[in-house]
Amino acid sequence: MDIAKPYLLFLGDVHDQLAAKTAMGVVDWRPEWCVGQMRLLGCKADTGLPDLTIAEAVAKGARTMVVGVANAGGVLPDHWVSEIVAALEAGLDVATGLHKRLGSFPAIAEAAAKHGRKLHDVRFSDIDFTTGKGTKRSGLRLLTVGTDCSVGKKYTALAIDREMHRQGLSSDFRATGQTGVLISGRGLALDAVVADFISGAAEWISPENDPKHWDIVEGQGSLFHPSFAGVTLGLLHGAQPDAFVVCHEPTRATMRGVKHPLPTIQQVIDRTIIEGQLTNPKIACIGIAINTENLSDEVARTYLKETGEAHGLPCVDPIRTGVEPIVAELIRRFGR
Amino acid sequence: MDIAKPYLLFLGDVHDQLAAKTAMGVVDWRPEWCVGQMRLLGCKADTGLPDLTIAEAVAKGARTMVVGVANAGGVLPDHWVSEIVAALEAGLDVATGLHKRLGSFPAIAEAAAKHGRKLHDVRFSDIDFTTGKGTKRSGLRLLTVGTDCSVGKKYTALAIDREMHRQGLSSDFRATGQTGVLISGRGLALDAVVADFISGAAEWISPENDPKHWDIVEGQGSLFHPSFAGVTLGLLHGAQPDAFVVCHEPTRATMRGVKHPLPTIQQVIDRTIIEGQLTNPKIACIGIAINTENLSDEVARTYLKETGEAHGLPCVDPIRTGVEPIVAELIRRFGR
Repeated sequence: MDIAKPYLLFLGDVHDQLAAKTAMGVVDWRPEWCVGQMRLLGCKADTGLPDLTIAEAVAKGARTMVVGVANAGGVLPDHWVSEIVAALEAGLDVATGLHKRLGSFPAIAEAAAKHGRKLHDVRFSDIDFTTGKGTKRSGLRLLTVGTDCSVGKKYTALAIDREMHRQGLSSDFRATGQTGVLISGRGLALDAVVADFISGAAEWISPENDPKHWDIVEGQGSLFHPSFAGVTLGLLHGAQPDAFVVCHEPTRATMRGVKHPLPTIQQVIDRTIIEGQLTNPKIACIGIAINTENLSDEVARTYLKETGEAHGLPCVDPIRTGVEPIVAELIRRFGR
Repeated sequence: MDIAKPYLLFLGDVHDQLAAKTAMGVVDWRPEWCVGQMRLLGCKADTGLPDLTIAEAVAKGARTMVVGVANAGGVLPDHWVSEIVAALEAGLDVATGLHKRLGSFPAIAEAAAKHGRKLHDVRFSDIDFTTGKGTKRSGLRLLTVGTDCSVGKKYTALAIDREMHRQGLSSDFRATGQTGVLISGRGLALDAVVADFISGAAEWISPENDPKHWDIVEGQGSLFHPSFAGVTLGLLHGAQPDAFVVCHEPTRATMRGVKHPLPTIQQVIDRTIIEGQLTNPKIACIGIAINTENLSDEVARTYLKETGEAHGLPCVDPIRTGVEPIVAELIRRFGR
């Protein structure tokens, strides 16, 4: 999947900012890929980028319209379909992370064929995966894991990859979710793979590499989440990480979408080591990343300090403090 | 999925008995559903049932031709397609567990449409699953787990279900693989579900039931298998078993398809409890089922006795000794 850049971010007429999470992720991490946003009447989300029409975006060099929103029910409303068709007619490709293929809408399929444009459904893959082999691959790997879904695993991985590049280290961010794929322009939405091939697909995402090269693999779900732990375990086995970072959101009362309490950070460390040793006996936790956005600055800094001391590990908020201490720990343990 | 009975078992021209595993499973557990087998020139497999032509099978009342073989590469050879078309023309439905849908072969799709016959692709499901909820459902559940793939989890579950029926207990076998679906006429091939929905599909397979009713759920893979542990964990969380039985094959040197050693029975007991407690804190191991087919009778009986004593649990071979001690243990712990 090679998505042409730059992007026009389509927000439709979604009712809140959270629905534009994907678009915001792209803007946060790849602002240089975004020429602007396109919003319909009544849209309550805003990426802060200039509002453009399709014609204006094309004039600014846009190559792909990214439908960077999730609407309720995951369906594509008719008045979005007509805007997608207009984008195709104007010469743009279109990419989405929706649960339904763009090509399953006859008007979109026809317009893409007529104008020779590409449709990217980042939640779908036409690759024939094999089942996981479990044999060690060369190269080094870091996986972000979590106490829950949506606690910052993608942001932490992107921040570590960026910091490693800044320090001249060799690394690649490896996307395992739809937003990550749009941010990196490659990768795979692992939760959309057929169950038999979870760990095989995770192996495919992070192939053999130079002995000193790091793949920074975006984690999914949580080993303690009753809905998604199977995906989390398959990813852990396929990624066979040398190092992992635990991500946590300290104000959450129950796990996302269910009534289960969150595990402790220590429980996640212990369980990840127990399970991860199957494909990498040397797996080790090298840091903790906390999403402190719901805490005041003072409370956040105290929490980070105390949590780090309690576990004897660097503890950061990728947004508030940056991830330099985690990269320093990685260098300390594995060399440059 | 409601597959019309009885079946004509199609074996094609496969080169060995192992390729007819699915057909053998159906014959072993549902002989009353099978009118005969159909083999092509050169077929090396044999279920022991009478060889019939399609016309003879129809005359004997067959309603569905079951393609009960896996051929190399999972593709359907042209000369099988023509036999499937002939079966449809003769008024039979057709069921398979192959990786490709029957309807994706134009000749088969046309014949089914023309003659109004049903095509059953038991590895595919058109159900819209939800993600797993992890909340406790009423009814009791037993799951078979394993030290590896193909160690007797399906046979053990079927044997326990049969023994419970013999004793007048209320139970249902719940299929999670293609052969199990053909044997029970319902269920789901869990490894073919999209990864996001593994535990949700496992919840669907074993719905709420009477407080004294047992679902005997067919296990998949192993928590220690690097290719399939994600499926195993999602099934464990979705099945939320009250009781589990560990299945083991004592002569195997490495796990199926990979180079990893097998875990011990005790490791599987401990890990299953650790992970299973997430959705059922009362989960307990109630027995061990050994596939002793590669041992002499004397060695097998000594092995069963010593293994049972070492773990303080009933230890049986479902084929050689039957599962009565496991059902007795289940009644002892949970009542009738």
